[in-house]
Amino acid sequence: MFKYDFLKDFSEAVFLKIGCSGKDAKLAAQVLVSADLRGVDSHGVARLSGYVRLWENQRINTAAEVKKIHESPSTASVDGDGGLGLVVGPQAMEIAIAKAKTAGSGWVSVQNSNHFGIAGYHAMMALSHDMIGIAMTNASPLVAPTFSKERLLGTNPIAVAIPAGEENPFVADLATTTVANGKLEILDRKKEDAPLGWIQNKNGLPTQTVADLKEGGALLPLGGDRDHGSHKGYCLGSVVDIFSAVLSGANYSSWVPPFVSFLPLPSDPVGKGIGHFFGALRIDGFRPAEDFKKHMDQWIRRVRTAEPVAGQKEVLVPGDPERNFEKVRLQDGIALLQPVIKDLSQLATKFQLDSFNAGFEAHLLEKS
Amino acid sequence: MFKYDFLKDFSEAVFLKIGCSGKDAKLAAQVLVSADLRGVDSHGVARLSGYVRLWENQRINTAAEVKKIHESPSTASVDGDGGLGLVVGPQAMEIAIAKAKTAGSGWVSVQNSNHFGIAGYHAMMALSHDMIGIAMTNASPLVAPTFSKERLLGTNPIAVAIPAGEENPFVADLATTTVANGKLEILDRKKEDAPLGWIQNKNGLPTQTVADLKEGGALLPLGGDRDHGSHKGYCLGSVVDIFSAVLSGANYSSWVPPFVSFLPLPSDPVGKGIGHFFGALRIDGFRPAEDFKKHMDQWIRRVRTAEPVAGQKEVLVPGDPERNFEKVRLQDGIALLQPVIKDLSQLATKFQLDSFNAGFEAHLLEKS
Repeated sequence: MFKYDFLKDFSEAVFLKIGCSGKDAKLAAQVLVSADLRGVDSHGVARLSGYVRLWENQRINTAAEVKKIHESPSTASVDGDGGLGLVVGPQAMEIAIAKAKTAGSGWVSVQNSNHFGIAGYHAMMALSHDMIGIAMTNASPLVAPTFSKERLLGTNPIAVAIPAGEENPFVADLATTTVANGKLEILDRKKEDAPLGWIQNKNGLPTQTVADLKEGGALLPLGGDRDHGSHKGYCLGSVVDIFSAVLSGANYSSWVPPFVSFLPLPSDPVGKGIGHFFGALRIDGFRPAEDFKKHMDQWIRRVRTAEPVAGQKEVLVPGDPERNFEKVRLQDGIALLQPVIKDLSQLATKFQLDSFNAGFEAHLLEKS
Repeated sequence: MFKYDFLKDFSEAVFLKIGCSGKDAKLAAQVLVSADLRGVDSHGVARLSGYVRLWENQRINTAAEVKKIHESPSTASVDGDGGLGLVVGPQAMEIAIAKAKTAGSGWVSVQNSNHFGIAGYHAMMALSHDMIGIAMTNASPLVAPTFSKERLLGTNPIAVAIPAGEENPFVADLATTTVANGKLEILDRKKEDAPLGWIQNKNGLPTQTVADLKEGGALLPLGGDRDHGSHKGYCLGSVVDIFSAVLSGANYSSWVPPFVSFLPLPSDPVGKGIGHFFGALRIDGFRPAEDFKKHMDQWIRRVRTAEPVAGQKEVLVPGDPERNFEKVRLQDGIALLQPVIKDLSQLATKFQLDSFNAGFEAHLLEKS
């Protein structure tokens, strides 16, 4: 088990080594490791070396200066200057929040960015302002629209965070696919089959063989197949792509740059970098915040008192699973897979972060 | 086959008879029959007598005066005064569009309304203004959240309309359930089973028996089951409910009033009527509209040139199926089921709309 602070401090040290300012390194580390804390292991420190490789390949500008390039009272486009999405994201969300303070709502579309970690982090920034927060991003094309053999969309997540009163906030954070890519990576490692409805093979036929994904297959939009509404997941993923990239001037559809640095960038880009979209809605642009929160509490309690199906203890409110992870992991620490520990240990060696490396090596020994 | 104009004129005549002003009757008819035109048969003239019964039960105020009750530069809450959603919806969407003109975006949450027809109609109102349009509504509780036996959500649709340049606009309009309720009604009539993943029975167990729905069962959120992401459909339906009703002060969750007049209203309402949410985003709040449209054309053409799976002619762009229906039905007319024709004929008799009744009776004879 690793302490949250240890992983955050290590990530911060690595971000400093690749050229981030002190402030940016701190922020990037906080956003990154919030994924491990909230149980989204695929988006946390497991990706740290991926960000480093993108920087080594000059695909990330760690000294980026984020700037507005177009705006109205409640909207803006932002150029991320090729920066870390982990840093560009929160800055763009701050712009949305600032606009909401004066205009009632703020909406920011971002071009020229990179992967921004978990969408939920950015959406939740609005909560302390008594605002609803929204965050979306496009991502490398892994998903085939309904009836398509080709991959034209990313897992394109949508996060919505809504404040409550006495209850915890409502936080939805969902990829617009049947299943997160991380779950497929785990099955692939275990050589287990996937349920039907998660992926298709290179001919666009349903498959349970996870390896088909690396041979021209694709993830499926939420719904899984046409009979179960995959066209709806395809619609939602498309909306995320258009809001994030066509509004801002980023790359969209099959042109979105890959996260992994060993894949080439598209030779005919249609925009700059990847795109995000952020929103902030002032509750009291609609009704007094106290009234709203009282009714959100009632909405949440109605769910909590619903009768669960046999075998389930309770009906969950969106945000519950991640909050439970956070509580447990802050106290007990965060377990990492051996390949991830090795990867982080190599990063520590590369950057001569010896004091951290001792921590990683201890865990490697522990398990070997 | 019925001519579009015939059905629209008849609906207008009926709305006049139940007390709508000339302007409101015209608008309500146009919104209602746009559903038949676009192939969403469940939301068109098949519902006309349902609206009449709600009026007879004094659950709809056909002389409603829609008014803003709270606002900021880019947001507003609107009281629908118990009016027809078919009339309240477009008025609220006009407020969103007007706010977008000055503030860059406009967001309107509506309380004290009734069912508003197809969400797509309202979202598409933004297109001619070079805006993205968004429309959502909550609805009678028919849907069980993941792990819940109880029905706490409606089919809660989301529509997003996005303008393009030379290409037709992108129009997504989707219930946040696996399947629309209308499809289940058709299976029920034919006594056919539903695929797994569409509904659950009163114990919250998967079922294929459509009749279970009327005996305490429920529709399932998009995704169908937990393994296929039903918690994501549940999140989306919840966001629609909260934006439409908790922001505005309408009824939410299991308190949403039923569409059918024979079911009693909840005895402990938590707000007024049902709720909607509308949004309008000015394209040129982000980038020049011409640039955006050029890239939307490219986005759409990328989909159109994608290789389809075997047995499919093409990969569809959201909005294609409805546009195809509209083209065919404007030319060839709209086919109605015999029970719907009988229902409309009875309405014509009730309101002494004899010239229309001749048209309906001719069709009844034709098929008997």
